Amino acid sequence: MKSLDKGAECGTDIENNNNQEGENQSETSHNRSPLLSDPWKPYQRPRAIAKEWLLKLRCCFGSVCGMEWYGYAALGILTAFLSFLMDFSVLKLLNAHQWLYLRLDGNRLLQFFCWTLYPVCLCVFGSLFSHNICPFSTGSGIPEVRTILVGFDMPHFLSVTHLFTKFLGLICTLAGGSTIFLGKVGPFVHLSTMVGAYVSNLCTLIQPNKKDNAMREMLVVAAGVGVASCFGAPVSGVLFSVEVMSSHFALRQYVPCFFSAACGALTFRLFSFWSGEGETLQALFKTNFPSSLPFYPLEILLFALLGLLCGAVSCCYLFCHRSILQFTKTNPVLVKMLKTDKGLYAGVVAFFLACVTFPHFAGRYMASKCTMKQLLTSLLESGQWSSQSRNASVQLQLDPLLEWNSSESPLFFTLTFFLFMKLWMLVLACTLPVPAGYFMPVFVYGAALGRLVGEGAAFMFSSASINPGGYALAGAAAYSGAVTHTLSPALLAFEATGQFSHAVPALFATLVANAVARSRHRPSFYDALSIGKKLPHLPSLKKVCPWLPSTPLGQVLGVKSVQLQKAAGPAEVRHAVSSSTETQIPVVDSHESQILVGFVLRSEALMFLRHSEAENPGKHLDEVCTIHPITVLLSPHNTIQEAYSILSLFGAQTLFVTDGGRLVGLITWPEMKRILEDLVKDI
Amino acid sequence: MKSLDKGAECGTDIENNNNQEGENQSETSHNRSPLLSDPWKPYQRPRAIAKEWLLKLRCCFGSVCGMEWYGYAALGILTAFLSFLMDFSVLKLLNAHQWLYLRLDGNRLLQFFCWTLYPVCLCVFGSLFSHNICPFSTGSGIPEVRTILVGFDMPHFLSVTHLFTKFLGLICTLAGGSTIFLGKVGPFVHLSTMVGAYVSNLCTLIQPNKKDNAMREMLVVAAGVGVASCFGAPVSGVLFSVEVMSSHFALRQYVPCFFSAACGALTFRLFSFWSGEGETLQALFKTNFPSSLPFYPLEILLFALLGLLCGAVSCCYLFCHRSILQFTKTNPVLVKMLKTDKGLYAGVVAFFLACVTFPHFAGRYMASKCTMKQLLTSLLESGQWSSQSRNASVQLQLDPLLEWNSSESPLFFTLTFFLFMKLWMLVLACTLPVPAGYFMPVFVYGAALGRLVGEGAAFMFSSASINPGGYALAGAAAYSGAVTHTLSPALLAFEATGQFSHAVPALFATLVANAVARSRHRPSFYDALSIGKKLPHLPSLKKVCPWLPSTPLGQVLGVKSVQLQKAAGPAEVRHAVSSSTETQIPVVDSHESQILVGFVLRSEALMFLRHSEAENPGKHLDEVCTIHPITVLLSPHNTIQEAYSILSLFGAQTLFVTDGGRLVGLITWPEMKRILEDLVKDI
Repeated sequence: MKSLDKGAECGTDIENNNNQEGENQSETSHNRSPLLSDPWKPYQRPRAIAKEWLLKLRCCFGSVCGMEWYGYAALGILTAFLSFLMDFSVLKLLNAHQWLYLRLDGNRLLQFFCWTLYPVCLCVFGSLFSHNICPFSTGSGIPEVRTILVGFDMPHFLSVTHLFTKFLGLICTLAGGSTIFLGKVGPFVHLSTMVGAYVSNLCTLIQPNKKDNAMREMLVVAAGVGVASCFGAPVSGVLFSVEVMSSHFALRQYVPCFFSAACGALTFRLFSFWSGEGETLQALFKTNFPSSLPFYPLEILLFALLGLLCGAVSCCYLFCHRSILQFTKTNPVLVKMLKTDKGLYAGVVAFFLACVTFPHFAGRYMASKCTMKQLLTSLLESGQWSSQSRNASVQLQLDPLLEWNSSESPLFFTLTFFLFMKLWMLVLACTLPVPAGYFMPVFVYGAALGRLVGEGAAFMFSSASINPGGYALAGAAAYSGAVTHTLSPALLAFEATGQFSHAVPALFATLVANAVARSRHRPSFYDALSIGKKLPHLPSLKKVCPWLPSTPLGQVLGVKSVQLQKAAGPAEVRHAVSSSTETQIPVVDSHESQILVGFVLRSEALMFLRHSEAENPGKHLDEVCTIHPITVLLSPHNTIQEAYSILSLFGAQTLFVTDGGRLVGLITWPEMKRILEDLVKDI
Repeated sequence: MKSLDKGAECGTDIENNNNQEGENQSETSHNRSPLLSDPWKPYQRPRAIAKEWLLKLRCCFGSVCGMEWYGYAALGILTAFLSFLMDFSVLKLLNAHQWLYLRLDGNRLLQFFCWTLYPVCLCVFGSLFSHNICPFSTGSGIPEVRTILVGFDMPHFLSVTHLFTKFLGLICTLAGGSTIFLGKVGPFVHLSTMVGAYVSNLCTLIQPNKKDNAMREMLVVAAGVGVASCFGAPVSGVLFSVEVMSSHFALRQYVPCFFSAACGALTFRLFSFWSGEGETLQALFKTNFPSSLPFYPLEILLFALLGLLCGAVSCCYLFCHRSILQFTKTNPVLVKMLKTDKGLYAGVVAFFLACVTFPHFAGRYMASKCTMKQLLTSLLESGQWSSQSRNASVQLQLDPLLEWNSSESPLFFTLTFFLFMKLWMLVLACTLPVPAGYFMPVFVYGAALGRLVGEGAAFMFSSASINPGGYALAGAAAYSGAVTHTLSPALLAFEATGQFSHAVPALFATLVANAVARSRHRPSFYDALSIGKKLPHLPSLKKVCPWLPSTPLGQVLGVKSVQLQKAAGPAEVRHAVSSSTETQIPVVDSHESQILVGFVLRSEALMFLRHSEAENPGKHLDEVCTIHPITVLLSPHNTIQEAYSILSLFGAQTLFVTDGGRLVGLITWPEMKRILEDLVKDI
């Protein structure tokens, strides 16, 4: 059990490192000598010198602050680099598609093929590639990441192969543009935790004598960095990950999270600047709202109404999403198709979506020529669309405003049609077996909803000073907040647009939308994914099984584990070691009394066996091994929720359950997984 | 032990309330009948009807969402109203002082008396008033509030008398203006928790059958609301309270916190709007930075340097603060003075400060005519001071820019002099025995530090596009963050100024300043106050006693508490009840084995005694009372830190310590307080 709130201070690390410096010196000489004595390795002398210098460098770095801080910085920078690289590649792919499409102007058939086959090919490739290399890499990844962050072990999800598969697959999905209408936030959180796991392993290599929960801390930090690097928004990135990932947040992870997220956001913006996209380190979706009178106080009521609307629509969307998830699991045709022909399914769905969005068909009424970013920036634009001058002369340069509001597609019709179509198209797109995020489309959808309300209000009150852009901002925050059951999208909206004038109304709308969406114990979007995948994530599972958290442990404890008595001989220890895989083996007073006195580590039990074979065959366990005292004990009356929380909060690996001092069982993460899976087997 | 992460959902409450509605109906008729039968109360019929209507209203409200949500809203609105009322009164008092001072222009002696005696009288009155009505109401209140939030019981600190005393006392302090140079954040957090305690009690009256930790949840929410209502900044208010108050934050308190804070911020801004101060619901210290090119990417380095500088100065300030705290406690003259003549001490210090800031003396070089708000807004102003036109013609209207930068007080000299003088003046002001906050002066000081660096950079690089206002913003965030060891002042700076263009550099500067301030285990400002007052707040105490958290419980456990055996008779129970005050009395198997089997509640033990006297004198304890099972057990090998965390995290009242199943002691909050006080007696 770790000390809980020791405050993430650089100071401690500095002191530790100062103390370690002396050790490192001796280590240096210790490391040099075996290297020199290895006769079969070439260039002994230069390698020894290089190694010595590297060790000196490590000491030098270590004297400024702990190695893990370099790890956090590297994590932020690497993730931001990946994010920038992805944005860059996706932009090139999208531009190529747009260029080709515009070049084929005049030939509708060729345009149709260009429009449909491009995303179809990308989707099929992405789906097949990710399925064949790493079958788990499809979908968002957030449900798995938060299961890992609770404490469950899912090593496949953090491998480097997985990272590359997900990265390439995600580029394919995003290059589908607004036809596929999927985003990058979720997979990026997953990518970032994979980078975090890798960096954490690197840190262990460099500084082996570090804390044993360093990996988990790095993963918590990485989850925050993922969102931060997506939008260059450090504060909301951290808060979003806190809200989605955890049920308790330890404050000692606060500073590392913000540090890493700030590094990530800074790098992301610097890259954007260097690549010539931005003039300076500015917000991603920069807006320019008039700051003198952002809104009238009475508009607060309209914002609250918008929140209500967003909440209601989000309930509808989440219901459809849950239904289609259920349908793909129960319909035999789809089940078979998704099992054997993922590529075919992805192709069919992508083709269907592309047909619907074809600009000479329904697409012309839903601004389908715009990319996601163009959609969002046009929706967030300040001032009313109807009053803005349009630049129709430039043909090759796409004008998003003209897409939304032209003579053949008037603005209210376009917005309503967009909202109606995208609702079911997004639900359909969520079933695509490709790496994809579901936050960004929801954010854009919310912006459209807000824009509609804002333009409607401006039209109704015929007031020039109502700014529909503010409503779009609040709508985006409220709708995405309602879908994910979080509040931080409000902050994300401010950070990503660099706009703080609408802080209070947007937060208010988000709160109202959340109240509607959370009512009647409805699961959030990520909860539904967790439940669908039957992940052992208690906060999600209890949305469908409200009795689950309060079930007493006594009812669900499995067969009693192996135990040793204090005076056990070699035979008993050998039997215990061979029949159990636990790292901590409980030790009882005697098999009759069953009073728990402590535990021995598996390694120590093995050592005892070696010791007894070699030297003293007659000795008892407690004469050779230290019996570690037990700190926190559970009783059979504790609920599953309590055991789950204690395991997760204290980062403990094994909890012993006693009844009146007598050992009755033990709880580990695999055991907890078994219990949860047993209990929700039939949902 | 409570379920830990059940997600703060309105939905649950709605369902609960729907279920309760039926009960309420029957309650209604139940309540009416005794009322009608009370013969001595007048107007029985109308009162019964009124009560019935009120109960119906309660049902009606309760069907929308749980009563506590109305409580959260009321808390936000009440606190914001208090905050507005305070700002309003303080503004009037400050205006009166300024008016009188300007009216006396020409007569320096009278001006001197006006300048000095006004704050002296206010300080003396504030000090004497708060000392006589409620002696604990001086100072910030944040150290006490966070001790209460951990779980310790300090009922005096949440009384309504205390609220009024602190409110009036704080008005006096703030009316001292920039002469006294103290703020309102800390006391407002305290005021807000007092309001929270009051609202929570009201809620209990209205809805008696609610959760038993409702009070604590309300206090956590209230702490966030305090800061939010001070600045109309909901997000950073909540985050600041999370950072300062807790070491772990439960996510289920996240939504209530934001809800209440948003209500508070909205009300605060609406009041400001209605009182005619603002055009609309805008930021408190509104700034207008150019948004096209807020800063060059390379300026990031300058911001990092600013962070370093802020960190270094904050270390110096905190050292002086700790020294003067120590000095006031050891110097016999001061000790006696602060014990018996608080008013005299306050008067002397206030007179001294007022003399120094007298505008015809040193005050003219430190812009002492400006109020705190004027100081801050002028420091945060966009563009370079040296290039701005000044409006010297209007005499009665104070121009803060002219105060900072005129021919007789050039800008660099004024800023440096201000920084030098205010450092020790602020340290001195911290010893004043009045209700006062220490965050705002630190924020202003940081802004001045940032402004100096910014103006210096603009002067050195002779560049017109460097905006010193951005540096002032980052400096304010970094310095106040370093002093309080938090990051949220960065967010507060954005929210209070409505400016997000400098998000990344300000966050970066804050991180750097925090790294410097937290190095070498230095206590933060609030830690120093906690340590000085010897509050049982472990995270502060361990800054001076690093060995404290890891001390095993076995070493510090007090005398063994009273215990009962399962088969205890009336005599043993009577003895136990009379010799102990614990609410949970441990029950052991037998006095020989000492194996803990559970506990009985004190009330049940008393019931057993009555029962045995009346009916069955021969019965044993376990035949009559339920012996409650024990959920979490500790062992003597657990550390103090672990016991403290478990008590605090699980909101438990009593933890039993067993060794191999045998009871060895119990840990409660009063026991924990005794342990901590014993251990740090001699520091």
